[in-house]
Amino acid sequence: MDRQVKYLLDESELPRQWYNVVADLPSPPPPPLHPGTREPVGPDDLAPLFPAALIGQEVSAERYIPIPEDVRDVYRLWRPTPLLRARRLEKELGTPARIYYKYEGGSPAGSHKPNTAIPQAYYNAAEGVSRLTTETGAGQWGSALAFASAVFGLQCEVWQVRASYDQKPYRRLLMETYGATVHPSPSDMTQSGKAILAADPDSPGSLGIAISEAVEVAAGDPSARYALGSVLNHVLLHQTVIGEEAIKQMAQAGDVPDLIIGCTGGGSNFSGLVFPFLREKLAGRMNPVLRAVEPAACPSFTRGVYAYDFGDTAGFTPLLKMHTLGHDFIPDPIHAGGLRYHGMSPLLSHMYELGLFEAVAKPQSECFAAGLRFARAEGIVPAPEPTHALASCIEEALRCKETGEEKVILTALCGHGLLDLTAYESFLAGQVTDLELPAQSLQDALSSLPAGV
Amino acid sequence: MDRQVKYLLDESELPRQWYNVVADLPSPPPPPLHPGTREPVGPDDLAPLFPAALIGQEVSAERYIPIPEDVRDVYRLWRPTPLLRARRLEKELGTPARIYYKYEGGSPAGSHKPNTAIPQAYYNAAEGVSRLTTETGAGQWGSALAFASAVFGLQCEVWQVRASYDQKPYRRLLMETYGATVHPSPSDMTQSGKAILAADPDSPGSLGIAISEAVEVAAGDPSARYALGSVLNHVLLHQTVIGEEAIKQMAQAGDVPDLIIGCTGGGSNFSGLVFPFLREKLAGRMNPVLRAVEPAACPSFTRGVYAYDFGDTAGFTPLLKMHTLGHDFIPDPIHAGGLRYHGMSPLLSHMYELGLFEAVAKPQSECFAAGLRFARAEGIVPAPEPTHALASCIEEALRCKETGEEKVILTALCGHGLLDLTAYESFLAGQVTDLELPAQSLQDALSSLPAGV
Repeated sequence: MDRQVKYLLDESELPRQWYNVVADLPSPPPPPLHPGTREPVGPDDLAPLFPAALIGQEVSAERYIPIPEDVRDVYRLWRPTPLLRARRLEKELGTPARIYYKYEGGSPAGSHKPNTAIPQAYYNAAEGVSRLTTETGAGQWGSALAFASAVFGLQCEVWQVRASYDQKPYRRLLMETYGATVHPSPSDMTQSGKAILAADPDSPGSLGIAISEAVEVAAGDPSARYALGSVLNHVLLHQTVIGEEAIKQMAQAGDVPDLIIGCTGGGSNFSGLVFPFLREKLAGRMNPVLRAVEPAACPSFTRGVYAYDFGDTAGFTPLLKMHTLGHDFIPDPIHAGGLRYHGMSPLLSHMYELGLFEAVAKPQSECFAAGLRFARAEGIVPAPEPTHALASCIEEALRCKETGEEKVILTALCGHGLLDLTAYESFLAGQVTDLELPAQSLQDALSSLPAGV
Repeated sequence: MDRQVKYLLDESELPRQWYNVVADLPSPPPPPLHPGTREPVGPDDLAPLFPAALIGQEVSAERYIPIPEDVRDVYRLWRPTPLLRARRLEKELGTPARIYYKYEGGSPAGSHKPNTAIPQAYYNAAEGVSRLTTETGAGQWGSALAFASAVFGLQCEVWQVRASYDQKPYRRLLMETYGATVHPSPSDMTQSGKAILAADPDSPGSLGIAISEAVEVAAGDPSARYALGSVLNHVLLHQTVIGEEAIKQMAQAGDVPDLIIGCTGGGSNFSGLVFPFLREKLAGRMNPVLRAVEPAACPSFTRGVYAYDFGDTAGFTPLLKMHTLGHDFIPDPIHAGGLRYHGMSPLLSHMYELGLFEAVAKPQSECFAAGLRFARAEGIVPAPEPTHALASCIEEALRCKETGEEKVILTALCGHGLLDLTAYESFLAGQVTDLELPAQSLQDALSSLPAGV
């Protein structure tokens, strides 16, 4: 049927295992280091923060890890997700390129985040944890964990970056609808939050600060653990259901991707789509170019350094070898709150150093223009985060229009923007600006990198 | 697979025709009357408001009407929609009943409304119309028409009921994101709006007033037509894709519905699911009870009268024989804005008089409690409108828990509530109240019924 736009999979094709890309890399990523001893952290160091099953996944070198049936049962509510061909956008652009998008916005929380929130809540509940703490930016991760906590009967407490808490009240309401408690961060409930507020009572917050607060609270309560929505290996692992499904769906569509594009903040959305395709590429079964797109206002790949740094602002987390802007870096409050993180997944950073994918940065006005164009052609209003990837898709499709190339482009549409409409309102009102990130601020932030590692 | 929750259809099973229930009724509904002559209106009377193709569908007695391929091509973006079994809710309720929901919230605008917005925009564009006007309550219809107008290159101008315009800014932003212009109603842009404002400058508005404004503007511009999101025969017709798909999906699930429940405001969601099942029932192939659920604050079936009345407040529309609370009735600003209409579809009203389905009314606090329970079990946050049907489903499922009956219940989950989260916030804060609708106000509103018809 040549008008087909959706490629669906039956529930019986829901993946049964997660794919661990570490098994196929020429070398493993450098280990996290203990902030005190500077020695590699062991499972015992992580036990106050994570359940044993997730620590095991964090350090696993197994190629495939089985997905528990109780997790698959929750995935069934929205997975497998559809792959769509953007025929209307292609026509509007007049491009010979064929553009596909894997759409994760149909999940209960409206993004890809429940793919990892569900197993994280499941493993915590299975090990007797009764309370989860976490941070959130735009609120996509927080609402996913709130939903997962409701499913598995856990209390959920979320520190939301103040800039997003104020800009996006609906995501807070969604978390509360699922039964979670939400605090703006920095808050006066933690030592780390108080320290930030003492220095700057008007701090817009950052993911790094919110992580410090959530980690501090979890570490102080034996019945609580901490959950993270990106960056760590086990989080990226859980997201690989996206790419596993997309491989089958691209085969259904009869196309092989030449270029795969995803946005990166902490890296989980990009990894989820790309890792399974990278496995196919390394095995010689296809040869797509893989491209990460990050915001020009928070460019950890393209302007950061590859160094050991803290995952949070207060320095509570292990030292992670990653592309970082320095843990003191506080990004401009751009609308794509989910991409406002000073660091990058250590696994993805390692892979970038190995030359396994490319990275570019995009200013937000170009991204919103792409998002609006997509919404009016395809109907779905994309979240601000994936508009970064869409901007790159459109740029590439217009290049194909010049060259006549029938390039097959695949992108990760990781969430809808229905709770981000105030950002589109600002864009339509001409109030979205692209601030140049001065070299000096970057230099200053990088001076916060810990010495001697 | 006994854990299956989703029943999907391939795009190749997208319906090719709409089902016109009029063909199977023992008698046709009474005709609309001209407001001046009180004679049945003819196609010429409607030509200033609607394109010829839609007028033809409005009066058609054909059993099936083909869906244009260009309309099916847009439907493909989200149709066929999934049928889900609410296994988690069943478990939480401890009921032996099997609860299924047909979910329309995955459409671009988040509700069932694009099912008719797309063909309406298509037929208008095909006949050379360049501008559409409409009214909207909660904004579900307005955002659907805004999306459809973007697809077919039409200007779209929406009068949104003031109570919803103020309560639900995100739906306005969605309409604007799709490129539409939105005015709060009553506005000072029309004679009818000015008259209302003169009498009550703080009027919360009503669908009846907003219809008057949109009709007045369309009637005064030869290049414009008016579009309606419910009530009329052609609108209900377009929604039958819901039920046609659900029949196939229930067969996939291996169950036959004993009870089908939908909420009613103007009637399009209920009709869309129920009409095809009613055809099967009339043909003796199944025997489900069919139940409409309306808000206790706007109870046109259960407390209104069956009489000729105007569809709008100013008296611009033809006289429609319907269950009505009187065109002067201004419902309490309940959160389910999409159900705040003084009248009811004339076709559905006729069918109610024929005894083809039953109707009940539910207070909004019971509905929000049901919505919250559903959200925490199934993940999807329902729009306030379908929580009325969910409240009835849950009541029935709990009755089955007492009796042990394995009743098969099917409901129409016509939209998600992500843009209605402020309503859930009010409910969680204990601020949702159930006002008794006094008999005297009803009596007063009914005194506005036109005499002599």
